Amino acid sequence: MSKPFKRILFTGAAGNLGRRLRDHLQQFADVVRLTDAVDFGPAREGEEVMLGDLGNRDDVFRMCEGVDAILHFGGVSTEQPFEPIMNANILGTVNLYEAVHKLGIKRVVFASSNHTMGMYPTTTLVDAGMPTRADGYYGLSKVWGEALSRFYWDRFGIETVCLRIGYCFPEPTTHRQMNTWVSLDDMVQLLHRSLVVPCVGHSITFAVSDNPGRWWDDRHTRFLGYAPKDSSAQFADPLHGAAVDYSTNEDITLKFQGGPFLNNGPKYPS
Amino acid sequence: MSKPFKRILFTGAAGNLGRRLRDHLQQFADVVRLTDAVDFGPAREGEEVMLGDLGNRDDVFRMCEGVDAILHFGGVSTEQPFEPIMNANILGTVNLYEAVHKLGIKRVVFASSNHTMGMYPTTTLVDAGMPTRADGYYGLSKVWGEALSRFYWDRFGIETVCLRIGYCFPEPTTHRQMNTWVSLDDMVQLLHRSLVVPCVGHSITFAVSDNPGRWWDDRHTRFLGYAPKDSSAQFADPLHGAAVDYSTNEDITLKFQGGPFLNNGPKYPS
Amino acid sequence: MSKPFKRILFTGAAGNLGRRLRDHLQQFADVVRLTDAVDFGPAREGEEVMLGDLGNRDDVFRMCEGVDAILHFGGVSTEQPFEPIMNANILGTVNLYEAVHKLGIKRVVFASSNHTMGMYPTTTLVDAGMPTRADGYYGLSKVWGEALSRFYWDRFGIETVCLRIGYCFPEPTTHRQMNTWVSLDDMVQLLHRSLVVPCVGHSITFAVSDNPGRWWDDRHTRFLGYAPKDSSAQFADPLHGAAVDYSTNEDITLKFQGGPFLNNGPKYPS
Amino acid sequence: MSKPFKRILFTGAAGNLGRRLRDHLQQFADVVRLTDAVDFGPAREGEEVMLGDLGNRDDVFRMCEGVDAILHFGGVSTEQPFEPIMNANILGTVNLYEAVHKLGIKRVVFASSNHTMGMYPTTTLVDAGMPTRADGYYGLSKVWGEALSRFYWDRFGIETVCLRIGYCFPEPTTHRQMNTWVSLDDMVQLLHRSLVVPCVGHSITFAVSDNPGRWWDDRHTRFLGYAPKDSSAQFADPLHGAAVDYSTNEDITLKFQGGPFLNNGPKYPS
Amino acid sequence: MSKPFKRILFTGAAGNLGRRLRDHLQQFADVVRLTDAVDFGPAREGEEVMLGDLGNRDDVFRMCEGVDAILHFGGVSTEQPFEPIMNANILGTVNLYEAVHKLGIKRVVFASSNHTMGMYPTTTLVDAGMPTRADGYYGLSKVWGEALSRFYWDRFGIETVCLRIGYCFPEPTTHRQMNTWVSLDDMVQLLHRSLVVPCVGHSITFAVSDNPGRWWDDRHTRFLGYAPKDSSAQFADPLHGAAVDYSTNEDITLKFQGGPFLNNGPKYPS
Amino acid sequence: MSKPFKRILFTGAAGNLGRRLRDHLQQFADVVRLTDAVDFGPAREGEEVMLGDLGNRDDVFRMCEGVDAILHFGGVSTEQPFEPIMNANILGTVNLYEAVHKLGIKRVVFASSNHTMGMYPTTTLVDAGMPTRADGYYGLSKVWGEALSRFYWDRFGIETVCLRIGYCFPEPTTHRQMNTWVSLDDMVQLLHRSLVVPCVGHSITFAVSDNPGRWWDDRHTRFLGYAPKDSSAQFADPLHGAAVDYSTNEDITLKFQGGPFLNNGPKYPS
Repeated sequence: MSKPFKRILFTGAAGNLGRRLRDHLQQFADVVRLTDAVDFGPAREGEEVMLGDLGNRDDVFRMCEGVDAILHFGGVSTEQPFEPIMNANILGTVNLYEAVHKLGIKRVVFASSNHTMGMYPTTTLVDAGMPTRADGYYGLSKVWGEALSRFYWDRFGIETVCLRIGYCFPEPTTHRQMNTWVSLDDMVQLLHRSLVVPCVGHSITFAVSDNPGRWWDDRHTRFLGYAPKDSSAQFADPLHGAAVDYSTNEDITLKFQGGPFLNNGPKYPS
Repeated sequence: MSKPFKRILFTGAAGNLGRRLRDHLQQFADVVRLTDAVDFGPAREGEEVMLGDLGNRDDVFRMCEGVDAILHFGGVSTEQPFEPIMNANILGTVNLYEAVHKLGIKRVVFASSNHTMGMYPTTTLVDAGMPTRADGYYGLSKVWGEALSRFYWDRFGIETVCLRIGYCFPEPTTHRQMNTWVSLDDMVQLLHRSLVVPCVGHSITFAVSDNPGRWWDDRHTRFLGYAPKDSSAQFADPLHGAAVDYSTNEDITLKFQGGPFLNNGPKYPS
Repeated sequence: MSKPFKRILFTGAAGNLGRRLRDHLQQFADVVRLTDAVDFGPAREGEEVMLGDLGNRDDVFRMCEGVDAILHFGGVSTEQPFEPIMNANILGTVNLYEAVHKLGIKRVVFASSNHTMGMYPTTTLVDAGMPTRADGYYGLSKVWGEALSRFYWDRFGIETVCLRIGYCFPEPTTHRQMNTWVSLDDMVQLLHRSLVVPCVGHSITFAVSDNPGRWWDDRHTRFLGYAPKDSSAQFADPLHGAAVDYSTNEDITLKFQGGPFLNNGPKYPS
Repeated sequence: MSKPFKRILFTGAAGNLGRRLRDHLQQFADVVRLTDAVDFGPAREGEEVMLGDLGNRDDVFRMCEGVDAILHFGGVSTEQPFEPIMNANILGTVNLYEAVHKLGIKRVVFASSNHTMGMYPTTTLVDAGMPTRADGYYGLSKVWGEALSRFYWDRFGIETVCLRIGYCFPEPTTHRQMNTWVSLDDMVQLLHRSLVVPCVGHSITFAVSDNPGRWWDDRHTRFLGYAPKDSSAQFADPLHGAAVDYSTNEDITLKFQGGPFLNNGPKYPS
Repeated sequence: MSKPFKRILFTGAAGNLGRRLRDHLQQFADVVRLTDAVDFGPAREGEEVMLGDLGNRDDVFRMCEGVDAILHFGGVSTEQPFEPIMNANILGTVNLYEAVHKLGIKRVVFASSNHTMGMYPTTTLVDAGMPTRADGYYGLSKVWGEALSRFYWDRFGIETVCLRIGYCFPEPTTHRQMNTWVSLDDMVQLLHRSLVVPCVGHSITFAVSDNPGRWWDDRHTRFLGYAPKDSSAQFADPLHGAAVDYSTNEDITLKFQGGPFLNNGPKYPS
Repeated sequence: MSKPFKRILFTGAAGNLGRRLRDHLQQFADVVRLTDAVDFGPAREGEEVMLGDLGNRDDVFRMCEGVDAILHFGGVSTEQPFEPIMNANILGTVNLYEAVHKLGIKRVVFASSNHTMGMYPTTTLVDAGMPTRADGYYGLSKVWGEALSRFYWDRFGIETVCLRIGYCFPEPTTHRQMNTWVSLDDMVQLLHRSLVVPCVGHSITFAVSDNPGRWWDDRHTRFLGYAPKDSSAQFADPLHGAAVDYSTNEDITLKFQGGPFLNNGPKYPS
């Protein structure tokens, strides 16, 4: 079976998601170009490897040269001081979309984050049409990426699917992880749909499995045809059989969707 | 088991849907009256056959005489010049509802169409409360039928379920057909529910199977209890394994829900 | 001062609104072409006069030849049997937009009607994004015109402002007329804005003065900059000092916005 | 496996739901305190029994003393004259929340009712954000309980999950019962989720199984993770094979969600 | 000029609003029946006086006998212990609507209160379609009255206009009073509109003058034609020239619309 | 009359708005601290002057030391290459809010811009609850500021009023300027309200006069009590008497709210 693309770019190959997704990317293209700021080993068959700094315009233009589509998973993915986030996630996306625009690339899949909406209460169902409520510098940098890619769609017709990714690790063990978990297979399915559906415009969707209790409503992106096959219901529910202590309901990591990130954000002394 | 009705009328018996549905109508009534403008063969057991022109008031009154409920599938069902559409779909529905009103018939199931909303982008989730966006004379004539039947509900209490029917053929082979497909069994189930639920008021619903990626949200008509059993996921996905060419995203038959109908509509010379 | 256009077309010159507006149209164009199906006297300076049937395609093409913009006020403007409404208001608008499309005309101001929403209760605030609720064949024909003009915008980029016109007579004398009254000056102002605002897309707005108690919300068309200068508050309020008889609250001409039109619509014998 | 709570209070133990739920409550706490106004037999192992009048403040304070959480199912549960409803359901909830507040109890699960919305048509999909439409004194008393518990959340941070309970009997036999049925197992699951999810704020949800045709949309409370396992589809559909008589569509017990309750409400002579 | 009614009932004549409105009621009816639980002096010309307890069914039936319409301003109008509120405002409205129903009275104007929504933040624009958020027993009792009167409309077609009354005293002196002030003249105008507009259904509106900064949006009741003539802008703004102390923004009487009522509500010891 | 504050900070004193507003700031505080990156002359009586770079954390902390409230008008205010915008508007706001947080300042008025929504069509009414649609780097940087200040409210309770400022120059001369104009007096009134209203939370409002045709709906911030006294209707309407050329309706500077900024944004070569 032929592959959908000749060459795609995947940034952030050294990260958690990059390493887990790597083996699944080959189905999308004859050549998968993998990049990161730090070394992640040599190219395998069907791969190209490039190292570079997203904050460096020339590096980014080199990464994007000759690709048909981009999976942009690079940049900082945890709460950190502002400077590295500004460089990789803000300047980095500016560089990327300038390259995309100049080079005539037509579609990007952008790894956004649920931390764009981390300050919503855990009792609120969030959909992609609601205002963002970031929970720190990291979440704010993803709000930036969503807004920037929206501009490139509105003004230049470049398509982006923004994935607000949940908890993508093998096994959820907390209530928050149960609600936000996404299996690797579902993640790969969503990447596939984001790449191949003929028209996606600028879309914001949720990378989450079919968990009971999930906080996010995908009503704006049903056209993607993403149909998660997995659910956190297959794991032991940490709420089942455990003693309940309501005094924790003042705990901001339980009250707000951002969870533990809320305690990692900007504070003095920063 | 007794049947829900003594006699029902099914218009449009010679059409694609009429021929496919014919064998499934007997469960609804002791006598199924089948009509069309063109000959479609003799009546079978439990059937009555009448020929007539929907644009002819007397013909329509004869068709409606003595029936308990109507499945109105007759009229033009493709994009065509305006005159035949005006006759069959506009004047035809006016005649039909005058007959319904005069004869005291209480419920109609009206075959509307997804082309009432064909100018919505394929990235938009459409529900029955949103303004119509027809994609040509055919779609506009179905907007007319929905508005006319709404009037008969608001003013005279005559109930209608408008079915915005998707792609009702045995096998979908394009992305658009995958999203809009409705199986014959699901279609029959929806007819059944539309006929037997005690109160339906004036409702607009979507005749579509449980396809991933469908564009339509049935939130306004869940009370019908329609639970599709089929899904286009059972067919080979035309997007799977195919080469992607984003340059087609300027193609209006991909950008808008109406698909190929957009190229068949009114144009000069008409 | 130069005029905005070289030549505009005003259809329906013999009607109530046509006769009242006639003297105010000269400000819009060097030449005002006036048309109707029935004679309304000779052209004055700066005018052209044409007679013709909107249901006749050739007539309509002649009317539209060489004009920069159209004020389409022609057709049936009262509740009547369906045939004349179908000819003038349905076939008539189809003919008009085919001409507009062929001849490259870019903007139409379409005289729609509040009877597109006459089946809304008088206690409901209606805006242009809500589903239509016509109160008879006349109102339905205006729903048709709004849907048809929407199609020409969605598909071909032809702009239309649909005016849902209220009670445009010199003096309101009933509660309904007080709520729906529009002064001639406000009407002229609204025509001016509809013609000169640079971008109008497909818009539906309400031609009504600044009456207390009005039923319609113009939130979707504030961009027109229409600022009514008149109000029915300047007239004696028919509710003031009059005896109240609540038993009339079952009167459909008081319960629904369409008022007396509700008693004039399709009925048997029609 | 340890139990979530040391002691919970269940009021209304002698009622239909109380008797059916009793055997399922032990999983929630080491001690289940059961109360009602009328005798329902002796305590079993792991149970405490108290009798008392919800309209009596002292009784209520005694019931609430020393419990970790409350399942408030007590009070009148049918349409009745106003006085007993006022005593048990209005004064009773006032007493209960005063006790809850004084005693520092943090969460209540309140048995509200679908009769808070019984005057919505059966063609309307109701969600928890829509205005209530009670169908009699009983439904109004549940509106009171929802509003009162909202106040205790807004003002004092006391959490309540209001359950608008459907038809919780073993077997549905009417169309209305099919749409509103909730199985005992689903009911127990919902109680569990309402008790153990870390943050619930003030929530209104629907205790209903996964029936096709259900009238209620749980979009505001998906965070509870309630995933019904049962559906009325497992029972014979009373609409299937039955003769249809549309003349019943004027029957208020079919037109409105409240069903037969509409004929039991306040009337003269009351 | 003749008067709109023969006889109307005004309950609560001894209260603040009752005393201020008394002289303005004669324009509405030949006879104004004034009632309260406490003595308020003898009847003047064109008045009838009755004393009685709203919690007493017989008293209420006597009050309502022979009247054409009711202005129900009686009952408790401040935060108090629950028992008197239950008697006058809960049982009282039940008695009133039973009388209204039995006696065939068709319209009530009900003095509800802004305290039905006192727990909304002062930064929120509230409209009548949003859920209530009462700020104490008094506000909850007004939620009850609104829900009860809604039932009588839904079920029996009895019309009620609920007035959520703001600060109706001669002169506002705090920021909250500036935003919620209603002049006596505007109040009287609103009573007039509520009585004479032909159809009002069940409506909830805001009795407030045209103050800048008001918190309430009357979009659902524009049909009343209420056009306030006064504004608190005519008074000295307490915020102008005063020193700002942001530390007060934790003050619940400033954060929530209910203001000082929030400190008067149910608390332990109650 | 005493002044509301002891000391306020106004950043951006050398800019267009800074220079026009300077003389009006003294009413707000005993001492007005004025800052900018470039020299703007000596302090006058009641003023302090500081120069500094918003991208420099130490500079920003010095500016904020000892002030009661901040009017943040500093930074880049035109479309420019990304680097200066990143420094002043992104890093600058990060520095500012870190200082605000550390120093315990409770309220900021942030000069956002209508270019946060410049990609909305001119036919769309925009309110503060709708997703942003920036029209270039400048607009995106203001989206950043709004999102960052939202975070400081959600997480730390620091209040900000974001002003999406229109065209604040003495005289509007284009259609776009007519719709977006704000007079200096209205601007000053809005600053006053933003500073003195007791609770503002995180609010986004529109700094625009009462122009007919304005594109923005302030429904979310009526509580501010901002009542514009001016209107662009006092100026000659550039659309009045001018020739209309519909061919310009493809002109993006007329189709989108951002106007000429759309042609100044990021492009290749950037």
